[in-house]
Amino acid sequence: MSHPTALAGTVRVLAFDVFGTVVDWHGSIVREMARLHPQVDGDAFALAWREGYRPAMARVMRGELGWTRIDDLHRMILDDILPRFGLQGLGEAERAHLNRAWHRLDPWPDSVAGLERLKRRYTVCTLSNGNIGLLTDMAKRAGLPWDCVLSAEVFRAYKPDPATYRGVAQVFDLQPEQVMLVAAHHDDLEGARACGLRTAYIERPLEFGAARPKDVSPRPENDLHCADFLALADALGA
Amino acid sequence: MSHPTALAGTVRVLAFDVFGTVVDWHGSIVREMARLHPQVDGDAFALAWREGYRPAMARVMRGELGWTRIDDLHRMILDDILPRFGLQGLGEAERAHLNRAWHRLDPWPDSVAGLERLKRRYTVCTLSNGNIGLLTDMAKRAGLPWDCVLSAEVFRAYKPDPATYRGVAQVFDLQPEQVMLVAAHHDDLEGARACGLRTAYIERPLEFGAARPKDVSPRPENDLHCADFLALADALGA
Repeated sequence: MSHPTALAGTVRVLAFDVFGTVVDWHGSIVREMARLHPQVDGDAFALAWREGYRPAMARVMRGELGWTRIDDLHRMILDDILPRFGLQGLGEAERAHLNRAWHRLDPWPDSVAGLERLKRRYTVCTLSNGNIGLLTDMAKRAGLPWDCVLSAEVFRAYKPDPATYRGVAQVFDLQPEQVMLVAAHHDDLEGARACGLRTAYIERPLEFGAARPKDVSPRPENDLHCADFLALADALGA
Repeated sequence: MSHPTALAGTVRVLAFDVFGTVVDWHGSIVREMARLHPQVDGDAFALAWREGYRPAMARVMRGELGWTRIDDLHRMILDDILPRFGLQGLGEAERAHLNRAWHRLDPWPDSVAGLERLKRRYTVCTLSNGNIGLLTDMAKRAGLPWDCVLSAEVFRAYKPDPATYRGVAQVFDLQPEQVMLVAAHHDDLEGARACGLRTAYIERPLEFGAARPKDVSPRPENDLHCADFLALADALGA
């Protein structure tokens, strides 16, 4: 790993993965289901919904589907899984409301305070496969103080397409090493590293729920490994 | 003009033109020049730089130039006008620094307070021909509390191309009449209106400097006509 002080002198922009890294999608969907449809196993429902996400993006990236926003992919997956959970009877308004649960995800407890600190010294932006409207609604509700909302929708490509990582550096007219990707997922960080970005891994052991703790052991290829955003702010002198 | 109360019930997103509407480009460039190159007529310099802006965008929109960010258009114009002001001797670092004066524009006195109020009730975003990096740097320095930075760079078209106005509604999955463009320029508002957006005209009589007060008389085709962002917040119940 690089020396934090050297990093703090080089890095100008921190680009954050969002689902799982900034917000707790699993817990938030479980809570939505407990409120809206308490008879359903919210844990299984959240996992099934999220499981459809990568295959759906892969269909877009292979050209089987035209460019599609995550809101629309979420809705396709939702319509697909509802019968499995006995919810095939949901009407259009209920489906539309439920689909917007992804706009209402709650942040991890350290996210807002950590971003507030990091924002004082760095430009903090999203780099998410979520669409701009989703990310903006989420930030407004949760109080996430982004300087700028960047999304797959801006670059017309999903992570880990290099166009997304390089796109952040280009937007800010910076060298790749002046941008750090912050994420709780090694494949995302690997994609960023391959484009010359710096990387910070954030432990989010409960991303898939308390019943499925994630292996969060450090990997030496990342520049930083932090328990949460407050530790990241400490490491980056913010 | 529409009744403000009806508007407040319909409109969800306020999209702001930036140069001249949110920030005082003329005064800011004059102040930069007074600091950096006090021998130059800052007023004439600011006007010359800005005059090159529309013709440069028109070249891109006609296809004579590929997609070009405003940072790069500003630089082309700058290189072109420097000899006229006796500044042909400026080196690369000085030119690059001066070009970023557009990232350092000061807001009008009411801009930050007005946006803070409007943000409580509406989603507030930019819709500017300025590039994302420029708008983000400007917001960070000036304290402009955007929920989201939208730019010609996102839509790959400059205003008044309909793709920009319609793009805002699409990003937020809204009907055009749920979006209001806020601008100090009638041609921009006209473009928005043709796409079905609501419009608010903001008086900025000193946009071109105290020596050239602008005609800011109301035009009936706009939904609102306000002296500044605080009056806009009053009119929209924010």
